Amino acid sequence: MAEERFSKHETLEMRQRLIGQSCRLFYSEDPMKIVKARGQYLFDENGKRYLDCISNVQHVGHCHPAITKAAAAQMDLLNANSRFLHDNIVLYADRLAATLPKKLSVFYFVNSGSEANDLALRLAEQYTQHEDVIVLDHAYHGHLKSLIDISPYKFRKLAGQKEWVHVAPLPDTYRGIYREDHPNPGQAYADTVKDLIEEIIRKGRKIAAFFAESLPSVGGQIILPQGYSSKVAEYVRSAGGLFVADEIQTGFGRAGTHFWAFQLQGEDFCPDIVTMGKPMGNGHPLACVATTVEIAGAFTANGVEYFNTFGGNPVSCAIGLAVLDVIEKEDLRGNAIRVGTHLIDLLKKLQEKHEIIGDVRGIGLFVGLELVTDRQNKTPGTKTAAWVAKRLKEEDQICVSTDGPWESVLKFKPPMCFSMEDAELVVRCIDRILTDMKAKDLKLENEDI
Amino acid sequence: MAEERFSKHETLEMRQRLIGQSCRLFYSEDPMKIVKARGQYLFDENGKRYLDCISNVQHVGHCHPAITKAAAAQMDLLNANSRFLHDNIVLYADRLAATLPKKLSVFYFVNSGSEANDLALRLAEQYTQHEDVIVLDHAYHGHLKSLIDISPYKFRKLAGQKEWVHVAPLPDTYRGIYREDHPNPGQAYADTVKDLIEEIIRKGRKIAAFFAESLPSVGGQIILPQGYSSKVAEYVRSAGGLFVADEIQTGFGRAGTHFWAFQLQGEDFCPDIVTMGKPMGNGHPLACVATTVEIAGAFTANGVEYFNTFGGNPVSCAIGLAVLDVIEKEDLRGNAIRVGTHLIDLLKKLQEKHEIIGDVRGIGLFVGLELVTDRQNKTPGTKTAAWVAKRLKEEDQICVSTDGPWESVLKFKPPMCFSMEDAELVVRCIDRILTDMKAKDLKLENEDI
Repeated sequence: MAEERFSKHETLEMRQRLIGQSCRLFYSEDPMKIVKARGQYLFDENGKRYLDCISNVQHVGHCHPAITKAAAAQMDLLNANSRFLHDNIVLYADRLAATLPKKLSVFYFVNSGSEANDLALRLAEQYTQHEDVIVLDHAYHGHLKSLIDISPYKFRKLAGQKEWVHVAPLPDTYRGIYREDHPNPGQAYADTVKDLIEEIIRKGRKIAAFFAESLPSVGGQIILPQGYSSKVAEYVRSAGGLFVADEIQTGFGRAGTHFWAFQLQGEDFCPDIVTMGKPMGNGHPLACVATTVEIAGAFTANGVEYFNTFGGNPVSCAIGLAVLDVIEKEDLRGNAIRVGTHLIDLLKKLQEKHEIIGDVRGIGLFVGLELVTDRQNKTPGTKTAAWVAKRLKEEDQICVSTDGPWESVLKFKPPMCFSMEDAELVVRCIDRILTDMKAKDLKLENEDI
Repeated sequence: MAEERFSKHETLEMRQRLIGQSCRLFYSEDPMKIVKARGQYLFDENGKRYLDCISNVQHVGHCHPAITKAAAAQMDLLNANSRFLHDNIVLYADRLAATLPKKLSVFYFVNSGSEANDLALRLAEQYTQHEDVIVLDHAYHGHLKSLIDISPYKFRKLAGQKEWVHVAPLPDTYRGIYREDHPNPGQAYADTVKDLIEEIIRKGRKIAAFFAESLPSVGGQIILPQGYSSKVAEYVRSAGGLFVADEIQTGFGRAGTHFWAFQLQGEDFCPDIVTMGKPMGNGHPLACVATTVEIAGAFTANGVEYFNTFGGNPVSCAIGLAVLDVIEKEDLRGNAIRVGTHLIDLLKKLQEKHEIIGDVRGIGLFVGLELVTDRQNKTPGTKTAAWVAKRLKEEDQICVSTDGPWESVLKFKPPMCFSMEDAELVVRCIDRILTDMKAKDLKLENEDI
């Protein structure tokens, strides 16, 4: 296959004409045309190589040959729907079950994290016979109508908050209502959910589910304080609701120490429903809902079939199995611990040097660098973050995205084959850019850049 | 890759334990384990070959080598998200645009028909700033929460009808309120929508969209009467709503004469939104929404990004392009006309012989055979249809499904490489089974089978 068929100019013109403009481009002022990728590297139409700190979906590395091989072999053999018996779907479910607490033993395969979260909502409603949902502030759970309703990040800009949706404070110990200096932020933030539940019940409403990413991502690469999830689960369950852990961004070993990020909250914590997606198929549309026998049983008891045309087909499952194999064979969780820890250490050293780095947080290869123009007031360094990302791309061929409520967090969520040298390069380049900014006494936040 | 890893018994046991039981199996009393497929044939774990009249998703034939080749080549090169510029997405959109009326020129790529219909709802709501939706009776538009709400086939068994959803009669000229003997069933059925719109407006409500499959499928392989869609579009638009054509089951040339089934309604008819899915990627999770510049513009104007993680990625689009190439190169639309017409002719001859065949209808390789125990009252032959499907599988190794409000319609929607000989074989086998039933004077509808 030819790598390039149209000039970049033509591609852009066709894109603007043929694709809905709501589908945005990275670096919209000067978008990148990428024609090839391998491992943690992207290549543009001129063969220029970029280090990729963005593509968490290409989890085991771009174009990993083991994944392509497994996909092609299964595509050549069979790709039917899951109304026929097939070994791949049951083998894959069995392999996933082995990574989860025993009680999460029933699986539904779907095509996207959004489909997974929508199904989780249906499962919770059916099981609890309640309707209301509690979500974290700034959360994003998907692009479907039902999920925009439970995503403050989206509904605040669109139809607004529905009466059945309730927003709990984001347990952000850097700039939230309880901070590092609090003796027990896990309990304190859990108490905010407890209070919210009491308020909901006073209104005569009933809770179906508490939904949260195990590490809030759009919220700004947040690490939930210890004890938070167990306590919240306790409160939600006493109100008859379920705890849904959204692992779409964070699952499959990104945290390194654990296969699932919810496991960071300790062995005694187990969600009622786990949703997974993005990295699951290394780019292939593959996602899943895991739940308990009881919850699945209640869903079956409504007597209505759940049919997902492509979900759990032999090719998707073959790819999912190959991803699990590569994570193990190449010890990518070990790599995430080693490289992630090194990256965080280096960024923390950088923080000592650059006043503008307000916070460095993360675990494994899920890392955030929050910029503030003033450490006392934690004024978001929004423009600086955008400017650093732009210079990293233009001067150093490094792709990094920004996120958080004020887009002031530089996010690192690279393919899991990211190396020590890659981490060192990124930190060196950020250091140079921030040093240059200081030397020129640039006050970006006041400027119209 | 080994074709079989577990015995059929073990696979079934694992399936029951690990996969939500709402995900049903074909032939649930004696499910099939399929390990291999090619063209229009499925092979079970013992190498037994089945003729497949079910798999409309594997549109150009199971495991077509051109599709596998295109997928593997692109997987080896790049599979990034659509925030980077890439030729495949624009080339594919351009190719799809060439199959559609000029005004349908803007595309959104997603992963499933359900995601496409959910997005169509969002587009219609955003453009019209209205909320209400009119759907056809017995319709099914997808498994998501928002789509169950607009699917009478599902919501009647679940949460019931929402106040913003309105159900119009299914324009079924065989057993609907206006039949073959009506001088103008297209106008008569369109008038039912007109009346419904007036009723909705009287209630002070406003219509966002009319949603309909271009050939209602779960409704029982229904062919819409001529003139229906144009008239409905006229009425819906005067109420400020949009016409959404759901082509998820029917697009990509299944009708043979036309690439899209809505085109059967004449050149002067053009929907405002078209959704597509199932056959689009020959089994790969790929779906799409096509709409006008104006509707896409209104969606962009809300200022909120639409990001679909896997939608429109280079691999999905490479597969979509390969499917279009095979449809053209192998003249599959021509084949659908030739074989479909032959199949319908043979089934009509069978109808003269067997009283139980109430109706034969279809176009191209979208064909339904409706069984009735009594032609006058059109009493559904539900059990007979199930029994014929079962015998076809067991005695003749032919897979056919049943559908329609009473599951009394034998459905034919095979891969588009279905041959004249396949059509003849199927009809010969049905003839034998119905003849045998008559000889033994079986009255299946009265029995507990």
